[in-house]
Amino acid sequence: MLHVNENYSKIKPTYLFAEIAHRVAAHQAAHPEAKVIRLGIGDVTEPLAPSVVAALHRAVDDEADRSRFHGYGPEQGYAFLREKIAEVDFRARGVEVSADEILVSDGAKCDCGNFQELFAGDVRIAVGDPVYPVYVDTNVMAGRSDIRLLPCTAANGFVPGPEGCDADIVYLCYPNNPTGAVATKAQLQAWVDWANERKALIIFDAAYEAFIRTPGIPHSIYECAGARTCAVEIRSFSKTAGFTGIRCGYTVVPDGLSAYAADGRPVELRGMWTRRQTTKFNGASYLTQRAAEAVCSPEGQAETRATVDFYLGNAAIMKEALRGLGYAVTGGDDSPYLWVDVKGDSWAFFDRLLAEANVVTTPGAGFGAAGEGYIRISAFNSRENVLEAVSRLKKVL
Amino acid sequence: MLHVNENYSKIKPTYLFAEIAHRVAAHQAAHPEAKVIRLGIGDVTEPLAPSVVAALHRAVDDEADRSRFHGYGPEQGYAFLREKIAEVDFRARGVEVSADEILVSDGAKCDCGNFQELFAGDVRIAVGDPVYPVYVDTNVMAGRSDIRLLPCTAANGFVPGPEGCDADIVYLCYPNNPTGAVATKAQLQAWVDWANERKALIIFDAAYEAFIRTPGIPHSIYECAGARTCAVEIRSFSKTAGFTGIRCGYTVVPDGLSAYAADGRPVELRGMWTRRQTTKFNGASYLTQRAAEAVCSPEGQAETRATVDFYLGNAAIMKEALRGLGYAVTGGDDSPYLWVDVKGDSWAFFDRLLAEANVVTTPGAGFGAAGEGYIRISAFNSRENVLEAVSRLKKVL
Repeated sequence: MLHVNENYSKIKPTYLFAEIAHRVAAHQAAHPEAKVIRLGIGDVTEPLAPSVVAALHRAVDDEADRSRFHGYGPEQGYAFLREKIAEVDFRARGVEVSADEILVSDGAKCDCGNFQELFAGDVRIAVGDPVYPVYVDTNVMAGRSDIRLLPCTAANGFVPGPEGCDADIVYLCYPNNPTGAVATKAQLQAWVDWANERKALIIFDAAYEAFIRTPGIPHSIYECAGARTCAVEIRSFSKTAGFTGIRCGYTVVPDGLSAYAADGRPVELRGMWTRRQTTKFNGASYLTQRAAEAVCSPEGQAETRATVDFYLGNAAIMKEALRGLGYAVTGGDDSPYLWVDVKGDSWAFFDRLLAEANVVTTPGAGFGAAGEGYIRISAFNSRENVLEAVSRLKKVL
Repeated sequence: MLHVNENYSKIKPTYLFAEIAHRVAAHQAAHPEAKVIRLGIGDVTEPLAPSVVAALHRAVDDEADRSRFHGYGPEQGYAFLREKIAEVDFRARGVEVSADEILVSDGAKCDCGNFQELFAGDVRIAVGDPVYPVYVDTNVMAGRSDIRLLPCTAANGFVPGPEGCDADIVYLCYPNNPTGAVATKAQLQAWVDWANERKALIIFDAAYEAFIRTPGIPHSIYECAGARTCAVEIRSFSKTAGFTGIRCGYTVVPDGLSAYAADGRPVELRGMWTRRQTTKFNGASYLTQRAAEAVCSPEGQAETRATVDFYLGNAAIMKEALRGLGYAVTGGDDSPYLWVDVKGDSWAFFDRLLAEANVVTTPGAGFGAAGEGYIRISAFNSRENVLEAVSRLKKVL
């Protein structure tokens, strides 16, 4: 008799987006004439940049020509892309990360979910609360039960520090999903010092890095002294360049970064991650990697930055309106997300906005207990919808 | 102190393709004028089919247009693709598999590697010897040590039966990599009956299904009575349609197929696999899925079948030549691989062909102990190279 992995039954079912969909469908059925505006989702709405589209067409033509055809690529990604990423995302910002420290994948969610495989079953995990559920669920599925929550509250500016955190791995995400908060260099440095001191690991999720506009806010954990000996960094082209449907991300695993065997001997994580990827993954699509290369070109950088600026413009319009209505709002300056203190039950507020304004948001309680009392609003939408949503909110709030 | 997953250190390092590359490079350095022909690799050489190229260009244009843009898709794959697969790969062959039993991914290697996550740490695994290393390595990485080898030998026609096999999961791959052997319906039925009787699972890897030409050879495990209660089937577009660089595969998990909790309660595997994929994967690229949809069109089916026929033509030319030279050869009729009994040490034969004929093959010993005495020859090449290789082999063998 074949036995299942019992840990799967220990995951808390996440009904959040299913429940939202259910409530929206019921509302729409009751009010078929209502024009519902969806500010709940975290998916992009704008098309790919022109230089990316041109690169994709060229890559498709490569695959149509025997002499330029690309079959299996390196599981770690093509050198043409890894070198461009090292240059544009790191060297240009004064951060030294080499091409062979960058391992390309089909997305940051996969890397966030898979990286925990490299570690023992009994390691202790720390995550923020509220949290992107992938960090927690993938550890629970692997049998880990010691998961400590770091409350992200107005009192700590939604950026918890390492004081008293007794864990082996901490997941940090800045700009944060769902709160939109960013961490200062001093705040990140405290985590780096904590990790080096106790030989712990930071898994730094920088999926929303492209939204940072405030000078001085770190774009990479490697801007902190000592981060190369205690941190991996996960990046995504999804929000940077609208690749949610194209699928590309990468993880930086610095030379020499190690964890420890049971006998205390250091084991390099890049070798382990490479082994994981070469065994269970066959590389990101060639088309995707050519598209990502185009994002790294001067034209691609300008075009994708303009789209991110557009989303940030949406966020600024909504933030100003909500503040004008008397709500405390975090995020939106360096993030596509607004985290709004609704001064009450988050599902009740969600229901009210849906019923009275035909606007869909995400109740903060869905991201963890410390998210209760907040809603997340996403800036991924058309300007027209954002202006209309703001006009409706002003009428009902 | 953060501890690593010690199971990673238990994987036997696979130096096979690295060692081949090393020997070829040394040979090429010593003989820079030599025109080396590579019949070792399992990667395709022919470009994408015209209808697939056209579909890719259309999909790129979708991503360039706000009204047709596709962001995050369903982790299980788009319905437009799952429905086409159900029709073309199963219903058209008289096999009932529904669209919602088909879960699309970025490749068969990922699915082969990840599916074991659904099971307890102490389940017993059976695999063929020689074997595609992914089946073994992914189980070792997960801490499983009870891995039984089923010798594939000339005596059993390279198709071992279930007699005496005491395991909870068996990986079966037909047409086989590396031997090129195919299993008859009676041989597969014996495995299905074995699995149902003992509540075991068959993970059926049908990556090379498109190469089957012999009437009566099953294309799917579901042609066997009772397979829906004991088998998942993994398919790939890699060899079928030259998608090794595009990345698409899928796994069929039938309704009701279950394994068991510790208390004996059945747990449906599709729910578990869906949970795994929704937590750790974000769907295959939209472009890839439109390309795979085009493979399922009448034009795509005809074009990709013609390319597979071309590779099978290569295989037939090499098989006839090697038999004419007195070698026993398996495979090649329903597979891109020839498995050649070299009547001696496989690395010595590899070295001889490289030195005397400038032809690269794969030594069978690299796929497992029972592969010693054989070499694998791949039919993925141009006709010109195949004819030239045959001419050289005739001179030196």
